[in-house]
Amino acid sequence: MRFVWIVLSCFVMKGEPALMPKPAKLERLSGEQRVDASFRLAFQRTAAPRLEHGAARFLERLTRQTGIPLKRGLAASVGAANLIIDCAQTTDAPLTLGENESYRLQVNVEQARLTASTITGALRGLQTYLQLVEAGSRGFALPSVIIEDSPRFPWRGLLIDVTSHFMPVPVIERTLDAMEAVKLNVFHWHLTDDQGFRVESKVFPKLHTLGTEGDYYTQAEIRHIVEYARDRGIGVLPEFDMPGHSGTWLIGYPELASAPGPYSIIHTFGVYDPALDPTKEAVYTFIDRLVGEMAGLFPDAYFHIGGDEVNGRQWKQSPTIQAFIQQRGLKDEAGLQTHFNQRVLPILKRHGKQMMGWDEILHQDLPKDIMVESWQNHESLAVAAQRGYKGLLSFGYYLDHLKSAAEYYVVDPVGGPAATLTAEQKQNILGGEACMWTEFISPETIDSRMWPKSAAIAERLWSAAEVNDVADMYRRLDVVSHRLTFAGARHETNYEPMLRRIAPAAPLEALRTFADALDPTGIEHREVFQRYTQETELNRMTDAARGDSAVVRTLEADVREWLRTPTAGREAAIRRVLEAMAGQRCETRAVWPHEFAPAGVPALVQGTGATWRRWI
Amino acid sequence: MRFVWIVLSCFVMKGEPALMPKPAKLERLSGEQRVDASFRLAFQRTAAPRLEHGAARFLERLTRQTGIPLKRGLAASVGAANLIIDCAQTTDAPLTLGENESYRLQVNVEQARLTASTITGALRGLQTYLQLVEAGSRGFALPSVIIEDSPRFPWRGLLIDVTSHFMPVPVIERTLDAMEAVKLNVFHWHLTDDQGFRVESKVFPKLHTLGTEGDYYTQAEIRHIVEYARDRGIGVLPEFDMPGHSGTWLIGYPELASAPGPYSIIHTFGVYDPALDPTKEAVYTFIDRLVGEMAGLFPDAYFHIGGDEVNGRQWKQSPTIQAFIQQRGLKDEAGLQTHFNQRVLPILKRHGKQMMGWDEILHQDLPKDIMVESWQNHESLAVAAQRGYKGLLSFGYYLDHLKSAAEYYVVDPVGGPAATLTAEQKQNILGGEACMWTEFISPETIDSRMWPKSAAIAERLWSAAEVNDVADMYRRLDVVSHRLTFAGARHETNYEPMLRRIAPAAPLEALRTFADALDPTGIEHREVFQRYTQETELNRMTDAARGDSAVVRTLEADVREWLRTPTAGREAAIRRVLEAMAGQRCETRAVWPHEFAPAGVPALVQGTGATWRRWI
Repeated sequence: MRFVWIVLSCFVMKGEPALMPKPAKLERLSGEQRVDASFRLAFQRTAAPRLEHGAARFLERLTRQTGIPLKRGLAASVGAANLIIDCAQTTDAPLTLGENESYRLQVNVEQARLTASTITGALRGLQTYLQLVEAGSRGFALPSVIIEDSPRFPWRGLLIDVTSHFMPVPVIERTLDAMEAVKLNVFHWHLTDDQGFRVESKVFPKLHTLGTEGDYYTQAEIRHIVEYARDRGIGVLPEFDMPGHSGTWLIGYPELASAPGPYSIIHTFGVYDPALDPTKEAVYTFIDRLVGEMAGLFPDAYFHIGGDEVNGRQWKQSPTIQAFIQQRGLKDEAGLQTHFNQRVLPILKRHGKQMMGWDEILHQDLPKDIMVESWQNHESLAVAAQRGYKGLLSFGYYLDHLKSAAEYYVVDPVGGPAATLTAEQKQNILGGEACMWTEFISPETIDSRMWPKSAAIAERLWSAAEVNDVADMYRRLDVVSHRLTFAGARHETNYEPMLRRIAPAAPLEALRTFADALDPTGIEHREVFQRYTQETELNRMTDAARGDSAVVRTLEADVREWLRTPTAGREAAIRRVLEAMAGQRCETRAVWPHEFAPAGVPALVQGTGATWRRWI
Repeated sequence: MRFVWIVLSCFVMKGEPALMPKPAKLERLSGEQRVDASFRLAFQRTAAPRLEHGAARFLERLTRQTGIPLKRGLAASVGAANLIIDCAQTTDAPLTLGENESYRLQVNVEQARLTASTITGALRGLQTYLQLVEAGSRGFALPSVIIEDSPRFPWRGLLIDVTSHFMPVPVIERTLDAMEAVKLNVFHWHLTDDQGFRVESKVFPKLHTLGTEGDYYTQAEIRHIVEYARDRGIGVLPEFDMPGHSGTWLIGYPELASAPGPYSIIHTFGVYDPALDPTKEAVYTFIDRLVGEMAGLFPDAYFHIGGDEVNGRQWKQSPTIQAFIQQRGLKDEAGLQTHFNQRVLPILKRHGKQMMGWDEILHQDLPKDIMVESWQNHESLAVAAQRGYKGLLSFGYYLDHLKSAAEYYVVDPVGGPAATLTAEQKQNILGGEACMWTEFISPETIDSRMWPKSAAIAERLWSAAEVNDVADMYRRLDVVSHRLTFAGARHETNYEPMLRRIAPAAPLEALRTFADALDPTGIEHREVFQRYTQETELNRMTDAARGDSAVVRTLEADVREWLRTPTAGREAAIRRVLEAMAGQRCETRAVWPHEFAPAGVPALVQGTGATWRRWI
């Protein structure tokens, strides 16, 4: 028996375009511009190489997104182009923090025009154009609009920890592609830690040869990634964590340590004792030469020295170090770390770099041109900004906590404790960074932990504070999620293979229904069950599950509504979902948080096959 | 509301291991070997670089397949290894046709041992090991077995046409990875045709610069692919189609043509007039220099000159050519083509190459050391073999016809008209090639047209003729299909994104249910509806649909059973599937072939929401 397809009535999506981040200003005009195989680009002025690359990438993305085989050649004339790129910057230049990323995009039925002062602005506009393209009943088209857009914060970052689990080059590349798609502009590369020293050093080769088991980036790969990012209007911020989190430095160079070795790679996760010895001159000579080498690889202005979680134990146990603290009147170990930072600062400056560190580095004795990244709490950012330091928010954007997009979305860098700052002080807050720590994350699972939720963070950092309707965010996020797949992210495509691996013989639909109802467990829960190491298998249901799914969100909204107004129709809809979940052969136990416990949920569950019980 | 996962009863797959191709001999022992993060390899003897690469790739594949982060280092000793590779070939050597690909794999509870005479044999055994690894209730394990295996045919190929639609390097790479997984050993690269000349030529640069719009492989890319294939025990057979299908040669070099130009790239598909002029000495000088250049890029013994579909029109219309035919007593245009082949043969030999061509080149005046690939029919292969020519079967393995795996599976190179050959004549039949012509295929759709069905062809060419149980093939193919995803093939992962693109706002499950019930239309149907060109969008339902789906196969079997014995239970099962299909909001019309029409199908359909009508 063969089924032959004859007729398909197409589903047509209409309504507000699913743009994320939402642009500053959007005006709908009437009509739409169609996109077909005749689509051609033109440049109004000379295109610098970086813009040419951007345009080629744009055409490739449009082809992937639509399935239309677009030609790579330009339009015969500006007049004949479907999209004109009018970019005032006609030669390449280094990326700079705070550069003008604004653009104007006017789409008319016959022709669209993208205007920007900078190449980066033009790249941002091209991504907006891609997001406007939708499938309709007559093919692909985009609504006629005038968009004027620019970012709220100049620093919109994403950190990837490549030490806990190494992330091969293709993972970084596809992350940069997805970052460009949602206008993130800083890739923060956490390169060194107790678990690995992931950069090739020709000056101190024992750093990467002994500090890894072979998984590091060669200098050629680093240069490739920096260039790949720059092409996409993304700066690269390297982090060399010091004086703590530096165990892998000490394996090959134990003379830098605060306590006698030997040292080895730590395969578990947490805060450990190894620390550089701030009292030794050799440490600063070493850092000078290392920073000198690395400054040649990383062209951007900032250099992140970490500075977090120094437990001070080795310093406390060393009589020499304690004597140093006393002699210099440094008060305690925190004082010693500030002394260290004060010594490192001129080294960075000599190599043309500005210092950046986690909020532990904040100290009144450091000058105001350092940048502070707050990970411990939101208060430290407010304090830094108040004192006149530039700062970024990462607290609240920790992707390894596997929170919902909504939970990240509501966090605002100048909200919370920073809301009471003066307007001038708020100017010191430059943005934020989503942080993908990878203790429980593999190259296979990282995509579903970053995407699509980082798009919601990207919107928080790009769009106006007033853009904060969670329901509308989710409406757009679901579409953006699929588009990110065409940008190369694998949060959608890795899902089924991971589920199938868990239970190869199970019906896929059962597994999906089950997994769609699950929230995976973040770092704060996961450590309770098992001691994790770099060798732990990350191939379980909690690794495959993505959480924050539309099924659960809808069910949640329905239950809330039902608790307020328990209509029969609403109850039937809820029970249908529960029946579907319970009907799959998996032994599922859904747990409601106690906020719902009193209100009659047990009755709702009854007879659906789901079971209801109190959870502690 | 958050759902927290507590308990999951794992589905356990047991039964015969899903090996494909099925090995020549398999003996089950009791027990199983477990695979966890402590898994380590060892070499019994010196490992040549190609085997080292193979082992590294094996570990990476095992990591991807299981999600277990395996270390890349070797076991401390042979005794401590989980898998010992004992390969008698300790230095690299060129691949040769008919080389010993046999291996022996013994898996015991404590240790497995892979024994092979050649590196290629060891690579084949490693793939078998990967296929043995299954998820069980206690993690990943493989059954204890003794396998002794070797191929039935020495030539097990896959052709990709990169002229109709260009296939970028990553497509070729992932195809080679999937080929290795199912023990295919020849990649036939159809590089030149009227639609494109896809290789960079430094000797005649107008071939690729004027013969493409920029989509060609650089020589560095060719070298990379050849090496990539060789690493996987796969030879590369380049095809330069001549004297027909050569329109793109003539754009830059019209002096080689049989009729005055100008010539240009042909963007449509079919058989066209342009042909080299066999009467001109300059043609042979040109071929000599071109083959000389290309012989440096393609190290394997055979060189495919195409030779198919010369329509002879330009030759008929040229008085000079007709005079040449008469003077030389060549009888007709076929005679002229044989004359051409006779001139090309010594050129190939001079450059160390053996001639291969489509069945049109077969002629008694050509020596017996040429190889004939039968695409027109199975008879021509039998005739060639009978006359003492070596030959391959491609007829019946045309993947662009989008037939079911079962339809390809039943085709046997020495079956059909070749079955009556003597045993000695059968020895001339060296195997076959799956052919992926790409008139209607894009880099996005190619995976689902090749996989998993090429695995069934691979089994036909590797395993004994008696391995022919279609139901058992499908049982294993469904598992192999998922494993091919971990090898990099995208037939599964590209499916949903393509469906979503068609109808972004439609519920995915509806689209899947619908698409799962469809067979896409092959080249023979598709041309009826539309004139296709290289610019035609390949983003429709028929491009996304994969066909040959388990849903349809099960329904088909159920209906056949029901027609034989119409039980109530069987009827209910069928009606449930039809209801699910009809219940989706798509306007689906399923068409039964008339063999089922009389037997009461209308009654079966009634009330399910599906409609029944006669088809023509």
